[in-house]
Order: sequence, then structure tokens, then C-alpha cells
Amino acid sequence: MLQQYLSHIGRDIGLDSPDCSIKTLSSGHLLVSTTDFFYPIVPDPYQQGAVACCNVLSDLYALGITHCETILMVLAVSNQLQEPERGIVTSEMMKGFADIAKQAGTDVSGGQSIINPWPIIGGVGMSVVSESELIRSNSGAPGDKLILTKPIGTQIAANLYEWFYHKPEKYQALKTKPTEEEVNTVFEKAAAYMATLNLTGAKLMHKHKAKGATDITGFGLLGHTMNLASVQKEEVDLVIDTLPVLKGLAALDKQVRDFKLKEGFSAETSGGLLIMVPRESSQEFLEDFRKESGNEAWIVGEVVKGGRKAVISEEAKLLEV
Amino acid sequence: MLQQYLSHIGRDIGLDSPDCSIKTLSSGHLLVSTTDFFYPIVPDPYQQGAVACCNVLSDLYALGITHCETILMVLAVSNQLQEPERGIVTSEMMKGFADIAKQAGTDVSGGQSIINPWPIIGGVGMSVVSESELIRSNSGAPGDKLILTKPIGTQIAANLYEWFYHKPEKYQALKTKPTEEEVNTVFEKAAAYMATLNLTGAKLMHKHKAKGATDITGFGLLGHTMNLASVQKEEVDLVIDTLPVLKGLAALDKQVRDFKLKEGFSAETSGGLLIMVPRESSQEFLEDFRKESGNEAWIVGEVVKGGRKAVISEEAKLLEV
Repeated sequence: MLQQYLSHIGRDIGLDSPDCSIKTLSSGHLLVSTTDFFYPIVPDPYQQGAVACCNVLSDLYALGITHCETILMVLAVSNQLQEPERGIVTSEMMKGFADIAKQAGTDVSGGQSIINPWPIIGGVGMSVVSESELIRSNSGAPGDKLILTKPIGTQIAANLYEWFYHKPEKYQALKTKPTEEEVNTVFEKAAAYMATLNLTGAKLMHKHKAKGATDITGFGLLGHTMNLASVQKEEVDLVIDTLPVLKGLAALDKQVRDFKLKEGFSAETSGGLLIMVPRESSQEFLEDFRKESGNEAWIVGEVVKGGRKAVISEEAKLLEV
Repeated sequence: MLQQYLSHIGRDIGLDSPDCSIKTLSSGHLLVSTTDFFYPIVPDPYQQGAVACCNVLSDLYALGITHCETILMVLAVSNQLQEPERGIVTSEMMKGFADIAKQAGTDVSGGQSIINPWPIIGGVGMSVVSESELIRSNSGAPGDKLILTKPIGTQIAANLYEWFYHKPEKYQALKTKPTEEEVNTVFEKAAAYMATLNLTGAKLMHKHKAKGATDITGFGLLGHTMNLASVQKEEVDLVIDTLPVLKGLAALDKQVRDFKLKEGFSAETSGGLLIMVPRESSQEFLEDFRKESGNEAWIVGEVVKGGRKAVISEEAKLLEV
């Protein structure tokens, strides 16, 4: 959204990366940095911290960067919480954040926190890399496959969970009512995905000579794919034909609220990477991904000749996973 | 405040710099980074943007770093503003921010904005420097002079202005009531200081072989001096004997609200640098500072043998400037 406002002052930012700032240093190395912060999406503060850290690092991973130098934490603590809850919640959130940073091989070396009506958590990720350690987002070519490394629907699952336990009137308004067990199952799956680093995807981008990637967050699968399409050097379109979605959510789209799941605009938190991979190595990418992460990745579309647009094809299907 | 929470998880951050994260890269260079954000303090959005950018860069300047590689902007836009005001205010704030970034020889290359009840503005400043381009904060020695490059009282001036124009009951409660002209004069002076980069101070730190510095913001003059004292290699104390304060504010301390001005804990926004300078070059520092910035700087105390504490001496005087 900053880009929207930045356009007011005539700036073009991130022209060759929709996700990070990339500055060339006098040494020739690149300083790659990103900031990302948002409101809590899961009720457990430790898990929320983990999700937030994964989300920050995804912007670097989308550039194939596998090492983050350090992280600064961005924190707003809610003025509606009193001590000792305030201290406990904040401390748990920071623990979850720091544990994921450690898992990613980095650390939290600074930051700032303020008091605010709404809690906010996020951070700043920074890397200094050589050109060869980075895969710029812009080299898609006709024939490349689009691979997605996490299913969509994370925010819908979180909403459903909130409705079931805290907003019964919204839950009751659903035409198709998932059982408590179904609500918990899809929510736990979503939370686990959101708290999973996109590091495996970033590593495999190098092994399988990926042509660029983006991470899927607030603009939804299609929104971020559009941003990725817009920076391509070649005149290509990115066409999505498969929407892997968390099982049980497809029926909820357009109920109570229009999530625009099928249109590709359902907002995600800490979603997967959408990666352009040469056709010939795309199957092997999926196999390696399964082996190394224990999770599935899916071919969701391909790169075709076009005009730097992204679309969901008319025959696109929802794939419940 | 983050440090307070970080202590929950047993982390020691910023041990050799109270202001920035300093990470040694594999090349031997240092990645120095800082994030700072807060709520608007002046009513003019353009000026507010300028103040916020100065505030972000001050953390780097406190380390004698004169070149910032790039800035990411941190923005929360108030949900209480409607369009077109929302767009205009945000755009003006970003213009003010970007203009100061340009003045500092850097740019804004990314960031994030969210919607929030309260507006927030700030950013992330990053530099990659060699050890020689940086002056670590920790080399104070007995005999060094403490130099302050902006007067204190910025937030009191902003409060006074707000009371005069928007909270008449608070203004009326003052025992000593400044006239409208006096209110405007001190506010404009404060705003001009807050929107002034601490770059001159950072440059002169090298010329005059400074032993370390900190920038004065939310913890007040003494609060930040305490942080600086705590990281010194030698067993020294930092003793403040002079408090340069914006003219007209001394009489307002302890009225309506206890600002703790004389105690050194009055919160500042985008305050000056507090620099430890060898006694023999301290006068020349002041002269160069006047020549290059057009503003005064003041010797406000000195470094003595001690136990890494900071104090305001009992005979300390307020110097209205």
C-alpha cells in the first residue's frame, strides 16, 4: 500500500523487485531490505510472533536470498492490555519471533516498540549479498511453470476460527457450517503454514534455476502475481489455472463476507512463494520440495507471451488440499 | 522500550551502541541499522514528515555515520481521516520525509503502510560502513567534554502549542501564561530544530576525534546519557551541568504536567546529539558547528571517573536559548 502513496510523490520504487529494496553498495554488493508489519491474525501470542517473523523473511526468500543478516523488530503493544497480561503477551510474541529468527539462522538485534490502540508486530529484514546470491524477480519466459509453495485461504481460516469462538452471529450466518472439529483442523493447518519459513523454496530456486518469485501476502495470490508480472523484462503474462486452497474453505467463499478467493484476491498472511521455474525442472522442484520440507508445492499455472499482466484462467479450478 | 521487553527473553542488544544494531558482515564491513517511528508531534504533515526522517537518521549520526545507504518508510495512516484528507495528509507527510532524505544524500526505497486508529510515521535507516567510518559510542575518558547540539524542550513546546490552540482548559490552567506570540515563537523554533538533520554534528565528530555520542529522543537528555554512560569501556560517569532549553519553557516545567525538564527526563523528538569530545578540541567543535550549521551547540558537562552512570549535577543550571 505504501507504493500507492509513494506514487503521489512521483517515486518509482521496487521497479525490479516488488518485495524488497535493492541498493548497490560501493563494494558492488547489494543491500537488500524489507519491512513488513501487521495486526495479529492468530490468538496465541507465541505463534503470532512466529508468523510475523516468517512474514518478514518471505520478502528476502522471494529473491532467492537464503541468509538474512539481522532483523529489527517493529512492535506496537496494545494500550487495551493491562499488566501483567501486557508483559506476558508481548514477551511471548517476541519469543515466537526470536525462535523463528534463530531457525532461519539469523537474530533480532534491535527494533522499536510503541503503545498503540491496536497491537502491531513485524520487523525489518536485511541482507548484504553478491549478485549471484540473489535471483531477481524479472526473468520469466514463455513456458516457465508457476509453482506455489503454500495453499491459499490462511486469513479465511483465521476468520472462521474467530467467528466460531468469538462472533457466533457470523458463524450462524454461514450457509454451510463447518463443525468445531473442522474449524479447528483448518485453522491449525493455516497457522502451521503461516509459521513456516519459506526458506526451502528460496534454496530450491537456486538449484532449479528459477526465473524469479514473489511472496503471497495482503494483496492475495493474484494481486502479488500481478506485481510480479509487471516487472518482467520479457513481454509475458502469468496465467494461473489452479488455486490450491485449504480444505473446507472453498464452500465459505462469498458467505458472510466476500473473500474473493476464486478471484485470487483473498488476502493471505505469511503465504507461500509463487516461483517461475523452467518447465523442465518444475517436476523435480516439486519432488525436492516435498522431500526437504515435508510439504507439498503445486504447479499453479504458467508463463505465456503477453503484456506483463497476470490473470486467472477461465477454467481455473480450486484444488482443496 | 523494546529493550525492556527484549530483556524478557534474555537478549542483550545494542551493547556497544545504544542507538543502532551493528552487524559485522563476512566482508568485514559493518551493517548499521536502526528503526524509529512515533506519533505526529507537529500539526503540519509536511513538517511532520521532515521531523520523522531527521529522527530516523539521528541514530546513524550518533555513530558518526554521515552516509545513509537507503531508508524504508514505516507508516500508519489514521482510520479517522477520510479521503481526500487522508491522501493529502499522507502525501504531504511523505513529501516532507523524502525531502529530508534527499537533503541527507539518501533516498526512500521502500516501506510499508497500514491503517491504524492513530497515525504513525517513521522509518528504517541503513548504512554499510568500514570500521573507520564509524565512531563507536564507548570510548569516553575522564576530561572529555559533553557537547549538546540542540536545546531540550521540543515536546513541551509542541504541547504548549496544542494547548493554546486546541485544549484551552490546559492553557488556562497555566500559572504563567505565554502570549500567543510567545507560544508561536517557541513552537516554531522547536519545529525548526526537530526538522534539522544532525549531520553537521556527525561530520564534526570525525574532525574533532569524538569519543562517542547518542541522540536525544524519547528518554530525555538524562535518559539517553544514562544509556551512553552504561556502554563505556572505561569506568566513567557522564555529568551534566548545563541544560540548554528553548526560551520560555523553563517556567512551564511542572505546570499542568510534570515534564521533568530539570531532571533531564523530558521526552524529546528528533533532539540533538550528545557528544563526548576531547577537552582540547571542544571549543573548536562549537565554533565549527556554528560556522557550518548556523546554530549553536553547548558544552553541557563532562566525563569524570565513576561507575558508568549519568547524573545531572546539583548545581546544574537551565540555560534558556
